[in-house]
Order: sequence, then C-alpha cells, then structure tokens
Amino acid sequence: MYIELKHESEVPLYLQIKNFLKEQILSGSLPPGSRLPSTRSLAQRLGVARITVQEAYDELIAEGLLSAHVGRGTFVQGPSGEPPLPTPPSEPPWEVSPSRLSTRAILRDMLRMAASRDILSFAAGVPAPEFFPVDGLRRAINRVLRREGVSALQYDVPEGLLPLRQSISRYLVDVGIVATPETILITSGTQQAIDLVARTLVEPGDAVVLESPTYIGAIDAFEARGAKILAVPVDEEGMCLQTLKLLLIRYRPRLIYTIPTFHSPRGGSMSLERRRQLLALAREHAVLILEDDAYSELYYQESPPPPLRALDTSGYVIYLGGFSKTLFAGLRIGYMVVPHGLRERLMYAKQTADLHTSSLIQWAVNEFIQREGIHTHLRRIRVACRERRDAMARSMERHFPPGVAWTLPQGGLYLWAKLPREVNAFEVFFQGLARGVAIAPGPAFFPDRSGEEYIRLNFSLHPPERIEEGIRKLGETIQFLLERARRARPKLQRVPVPIL
Amino acid sequence: MYIELKHESEVPLYLQIKNFLKEQILSGSLPPGSRLPSTRSLAQRLGVARITVQEAYDELIAEGLLSAHVGRGTFVQGPSGEPPLPTPPSEPPWEVSPSRLSTRAILRDMLRMAASRDILSFAAGVPAPEFFPVDGLRRAINRVLRREGVSALQYDVPEGLLPLRQSISRYLVDVGIVATPETILITSGTQQAIDLVARTLVEPGDAVVLESPTYIGAIDAFEARGAKILAVPVDEEGMCLQTLKLLLIRYRPRLIYTIPTFHSPRGGSMSLERRRQLLALAREHAVLILEDDAYSELYYQESPPPPLRALDTSGYVIYLGGFSKTLFAGLRIGYMVVPHGLRERLMYAKQTADLHTSSLIQWAVNEFIQREGIHTHLRRIRVACRERRDAMARSMERHFPPGVAWTLPQGGLYLWAKLPREVNAFEVFFQGLARGVAIAPGPAFFPDRSGEEYIRLNFSLHPPERIEEGIRKLGETIQFLLERARRARPKLQRVPVPIL
Repeated sequence: MYIELKHESEVPLYLQIKNFLKEQILSGSLPPGSRLPSTRSLAQRLGVARITVQEAYDELIAEGLLSAHVGRGTFVQGPSGEPPLPTPPSEPPWEVSPSRLSTRAILRDMLRMAASRDILSFAAGVPAPEFFPVDGLRRAINRVLRREGVSALQYDVPEGLLPLRQSISRYLVDVGIVATPETILITSGTQQAIDLVARTLVEPGDAVVLESPTYIGAIDAFEARGAKILAVPVDEEGMCLQTLKLLLIRYRPRLIYTIPTFHSPRGGSMSLERRRQLLALAREHAVLILEDDAYSELYYQESPPPPLRALDTSGYVIYLGGFSKTLFAGLRIGYMVVPHGLRERLMYAKQTADLHTSSLIQWAVNEFIQREGIHTHLRRIRVACRERRDAMARSMERHFPPGVAWTLPQGGLYLWAKLPREVNAFEVFFQGLARGVAIAPGPAFFPDRSGEEYIRLNFSLHPPERIEEGIRKLGETIQFLLERARRARPKLQRVPVPIL
Repeated sequence: MYIELKHESEVPLYLQIKNFLKEQILSGSLPPGSRLPSTRSLAQRLGVARITVQEAYDELIAEGLLSAHVGRGTFVQGPSGEPPLPTPPSEPPWEVSPSRLSTRAILRDMLRMAASRDILSFAAGVPAPEFFPVDGLRRAINRVLRREGVSALQYDVPEGLLPLRQSISRYLVDVGIVATPETILITSGTQQAIDLVARTLVEPGDAVVLESPTYIGAIDAFEARGAKILAVPVDEEGMCLQTLKLLLIRYRPRLIYTIPTFHSPRGGSMSLERRRQLLALAREHAVLILEDDAYSELYYQESPPPPLRALDTSGYVIYLGGFSKTLFAGLRIGYMVVPHGLRERLMYAKQTADLHTSSLIQWAVNEFIQREGIHTHLRRIRVACRERRDAMARSMERHFPPGVAWTLPQGGLYLWAKLPREVNAFEVFFQGLARGVAIAPGPAFFPDRSGEEYIRLNFSLHPPERIEEGIRKLGETIQFLLERARRARPKLQRVPVPIL
C-alpha cells in the first residue's frame, strides 16, 4: 500500500489516510476481504503516530467500509456485511502438471507421513533421532558464533567453506579416499549433489544407467533433467554387469549411478570383486560412475568393502557423501569428490542453483567434526541401529505370515521384504495406513514402476517396542490381504492398483 | 581399505594386517604415495588394539614398503625411496567448458574478492555486516534447540516449515501482499527461487525477458536453462514498456523477470504508474512476471511503491523475497509467493533440487522473526546504510574526476556510476585491483555483455572511513586511466578488453 502523505497540506493526516483508503476500496483496488496492515505497522511505515492511523480506520469502520476482527485484523467489508476472508488474486489457467510428477509425489507423501504423529511410519529414511547429537551441535554453533561472529553468517564461495573441506579431506583418508580439499564440493545434501551432476553432465535425451531398484531422489533428478533412464537389475553381489555391458555398448550412457554399499532400498552391498569389474567396465567404455555412499558408516558387522572411489585409478568416479543418514537429517549438508576436470562446471552449477550452502551450517558441522568428533557418535548410532534391525527382524519372524521373504542387511537403514505372490505393495501401503502404519511400496524405487511385490521397511526411526507394535499391525495387514486374495482366488481377479 | 580378519586363525592379527597390506602394495592396489589410515582409526575400524596395527605398520616400514612422516602420516613407499606425495587417480580427458560459464566466473570472483582481506571491495552485494544481529540469532538457535530438540534437525517438507511460512504470511500483510501460508514456498535464498522458476516454467529454447542491466544470478539461471534471453532497457521509471510490448508480441516469452524496487545494479525504482502498466501488459499477453523484491526494505527516504504482487489482481505475479540483504547474507533463506496453480510443480522442483532448505535455519529464522523482531533491526540497518550511501556520494564528489555521473539512489545497496567516455569498466576493475580496491564492472549485469561504461559500487559493506579510502583510490585509478587515454588520444586506439 503506497500512500503519499502531504505534511504541508491543510487536510489532517488521518483524513488523507482515510480518503486514500476509501478511494481504494470504492474503486475496487482494495477488494472485499483484503486485510489491512496493523495500525502499528502502517504508522511506522508512514512515519506518523499510531493514533493517526487508528482514527482513519475507525472512521472507515463507522462508515461500514472496514470491519475489525479481534485477533484477526482489519478487513475491507464485503457488500453483504458478512465477516470477509482474504481473497487471493484470481488466476489464469495453468497447464496441467505432467504425469511424471507422480513418483515425486510418493516421496513427498512419505516424508509427510514420517512427520505425522498419527502414523507409525517405516517409510522414511532417517537414523535413530534420539541419537542425534543435539547438545553437541548447540555447543558447536555457540562456539562458532562467539568466535567467528558475523563472518559465520556472510556469503561464502560456491564450493564451500575451506575448513570444512579440509576436515572432510582428512576424514576421507580413513575410508581410503585421497581427495584434496580442492576436489571436494559442499552441497545441500546428497540430493543436491545428484541434481547438480544431472544438470551439468547430462543433456536432455542423454542416457543414464540406474540400478533397479534405486534411490527415489535419483530417479527424480534424472527424470527432471529429461534423461533416458536405463535400468540395471541388482543381485546379491550388486549390479548385474552383463546387462550393464550390453547397455554401455548399445546406448553409450553419460553415467552410471550406483549405491554400492548398503544399497537403498535393497540393503545389500556390492562385492569387492564386482566393484573391481565395474570400474574396469567404466574405464573400458569411458563412462562416469556416480557413487552414492550415504550408508557405509552404518555397518553392523564388519566394515564394508572400500568405496569405488578408493579403488579407482582412472578418475572416472564422482563420490557422494553426507551426514544426513548419520548425524543430522535436516541440516542438509553433503559433499562430492569430483575429478579435477569437472570441478569448475559443477561449481558453477552449484552457484547457479543457490550461490552456496548455508554458511552457518557449514561452520557448525565443521566445528562439530573437529571438536565433538564423529566417531564416538557413529559408534553409538551403529549400536542403536543394529539393535533396532534385530528387533524388527525378530518381530517380522513373529508376526508376518509365511511367504514374506527378506535377508538381514549387514548395514544401512532398511529391510527389503518380498511379499507373498497374492499380495500387492500398494494394498499393503493403503491398508497399512488405515491401520496406522506406513511402509514404502516397492514401485517407488523402480525406474519402470515395477516392484509391486516389494516393500521397504526402515528399522532405525523407532525404538524396539514401537517396531514390535508396527510390525504386528503390518503382519495383520498382510494376513488380511492374503486371506482376502485366497477367498477371491477362484476368480483369479487382479486387484486394481493406483496408477503411478 | 577392506581387511577381513580371521579371529580364530592361528596367524596373529598384526600379521594378518601386515600380509594384507603387503599384498596390496606389491600388487599395485596400494600405489606408491597412497596414504594409509592412522593406526588409531584403522584399529577402531577393525576392532583391534592400536598396538596391533602399529606392529603391522612397523614391520612394513622395516621392510621399506611404508614410510612414516611425522605430522603427515604413513605412506606407501615409492621404488626410488624419495618421500612420496599422495597421487590422485589419473584422469580421462573431459570436454572443455562452454564459454557461457564466464559470466558466472565474474560473480564468483566478486564473491571471492569480497571475502579476501587484502582488497577493499565495493563489488559485493551485502548489507552492513556489523549490524547483522548475531546475538539475536544465537539466542534464537539456542531457544529452538532447547525447545524443539531433535525435531529442529529432522527432515522437513519441501515447501518449508509451516510456522515460518505463517510468519512470512503475517509479515507480508504489512507490504500489502495477501498470501496464505499455502502459497508461500521457502527456498535457499532468492537465487534458488529464480533457478526453480527457470527449471520449472521455462523449457530450453523458450524466450524470457530480463531487464538490461539486471541481477547477474538471474542471467546465470536462465542461461543455464538454455533460455533465449530478451533484454529490455530500463529508464528512470523502470522497464521500457514500448520495447517490452514489441518483444511480447514478437517472441511470446514465458516470463518477465524484474527488480522493480531499488533495482540492482541501477538503484532506481519503477514508478507506480509504470507498475500498473506493466501488470496490464502481462495480463493482456498472458505472461508471468517474476518479481524480485530483495531490496524494498532498504529505503532511505519514503517507503517505495507497493510491490507488483500487491497490485496484481489477475494472478500473474510470482513474488520473491528474502533476508539476505537485510538480516543474514549467508544463511540462505528466501521465499516465493506463487500462484496456486503453479505451487505443486515448483514444490516438486524444490524437492528434486535439494529435498528442502535446512530445517535448523528455518526454525532459527522463524524464532528470530517472532521473538527478536525484525522491524527494530531493519530501522538500524536503514540508518547505517543511508549514512554510508551519503558518505560514498560525498567521497565521490571529492575524489572522482569530472565526467563520472551518478544518481543518488533512494534505497538498496548500490551506486551505479557512468564513466567518462575514455575510460572502460574493465580497466577500472583491473587497475583498481592493482591499487587494492574492487568494483563490479558493468558488463557483468548486461545480458549481452555491454555496459563497459558503467561500474557498480556497493556502499553498505564498509564504514565511512574505509569508503573514503577506497573511493580516493578509485578516483586515482579513473584519473590515471583518463590521463593515459588522453595521451594516447591522437591514435584513437581502443584498449584491448578481456573477453567476457
């Protein structure tokens, strides 16, 4: 609202304000339902006393043009006199959203359910939250703000805070990766790293290889980029390299995206031998590997095989790491180790995307790594997650009907279960919801939307008693569906499934 | 490094470790120069005593296969015995970066210079940092972490924290914008908002209208998207609508990006009349307006005309706001008010880009708005920035040679100056750097890289005495260039300019 007050005028200020507003209301510029600024803020803005604005409002209320509603504010009155509601501007027609948004809708709904207090959710991908080091982070932030002051809140360079990149460089030595701080870029989580790679190294129409199943956010990012997605099945030792090889020859894809360690959603890890073969194939066909290593610190038996980047001698691996699955899900800090020749382009993409990741968060995470230490914390998380994994497996033994199959994962956050032939993941999803328990249906993780025989269960979010309760409800759900299917069997009828 | 220890074996553990490493070294899997994990971290990882790892290392050192360097670590020894350096993997050849990265390179360099302590920089776009409310933010974060605990660190929904969207909705009423929390999306700064709009609503090859000059980050985002950029000149009242109208008819662009209030880099504001006409044109041609309102709170005389979104009755305006220019540059929090029909698509784009903006930062900013209040702070910033604007103008009067022209801006952070005909902005940039002072050269802000007669000076970052010092140096720089040009004038020689 722009009111030009004439302080030299003989017309009193409150009357100038009133007349201006009246004109706006009668001309329709302030339509019925518009909420006016508070008297205090308008007075502040116009540089007049609050009482002056109040007088203008009072007169307009007396004239029936405004109405004041305690606790809600002052509104332009509608012609009928009923209490008005703010009306947003009318809208032109927009094109209908393309259907490929639907996968993303699932992920969004999963995140929403995980946040809802009414649903016991096994759909999310978060570690045990009780073990998030809240106090350590608070100490780290306080130290940083006292020591660095305003510079912890200033603009930073797109590649990220140098001390943090140095800390990550040192940390990576322990997992066998030699990466100078110059080849490390800080991102707002692994999701952003995947998206930056997609928009920088993949042109619309280019082919990319994903595992099938894989991380839903990677499907989103490459689909959004308009890539042609090639799906390679995964067996007990990792990606099926025979299929991969044929795809490499046939389509010359731009990159291969893989989660070699504690695969999401499957839980397994690529064997050392398979890793070596994959690297050899990438070298032979001159194709980049995008290695997503979100879970390797979450091992519950022996530590996993080294990351592909540690075994790579030919510079074909972009390595993605982060802290979302171990330290703090919502801080949004990840990093990528990039071949030197791709650094500039990825850095520019980061700059175009959001200038840089929040400075304060980068300072805080660095301070946490340096002063609080992450190894102690990681050990605690591992103990808690292993206990919960075992609790879930025990509950599944107890409550799931025969015919549900799974393998105990050696690390990560998920149990990947295969349903009996008669039961469909979407039915489990919706029937489970009705009973207050959520799972992630298999098709969310398959680029071709297959996988209706699978469900993914996160075992880390809830304590064992809650896990028991949720698995019991899920067992009842599956049992119910099984019996329903058996009763209907003579007809061999397929249950309709929502279109993905 | 993946070592499978056999605890039941008769071979002692240290020997198993040693043998494994030896095999790796001799086979070339651990090439000369590789840095080994510290004994402590490897021991931790293998679940053995540190002395066990130390024994393995010691034997390998004795055999000449490893060498220990105090403070640097333990390395695989090269054949020649010289102290080795870590060698990153050799790299395949990558394609050469396209030349359109260069604009982005300028912005990056500007940000770098702003961060460097050796250069007195007028190139950046940051408000007076001494007035950043560091203590208020620290209090806000402490309160949030104590009260919300781990939920302030959890995953959030892509559209952003509901309480923050509610706070922004209330705040917007004061600037005349009616926006329900549902139509507000939180982004990681305005840059991300522009980028999300570009990737969602603009297809490669689509035309978009930018002002000329304009915000460099907007040029980046639309160029990165592969848009065809149409440039409309700006006069004292804003965008030239006659040019705009012809472009709308000729090219049917997808959207018009504008900074109507305290334009960057020019400093002026679009008149109320021009705003109404622009909205009428947009409605007539059914084209979206992307309104970047980063600076409107930084007014030094009367408050500016209302934002386009406040005047819009037809739903064609996407409004971008943020706190980078007023509260905290590096926190990376912005927001967009979107037409309801575009909300879902923009939200999915945000999810694909980085899932959501840092939860903790969102909680902290909301807490700050609600409890610390931003109006007091904004008043303080305005007083400081006005003082600095005036100090810079006075210094320019005193130290700049005649022939440099500028208008005192009524708000924002920049003085936009036109150089004498003989002097080029790039020369001022490089000669200024040599004297320890940085400016932003005009061509950074023109989509067609013209504008070599302009420089942009940020007046808010430094206190008045520093401004005086920097402007004196700049005056000397311009004077030097002027004299050099006049000496060379008989030849009418053009000074070579770096290719942008």
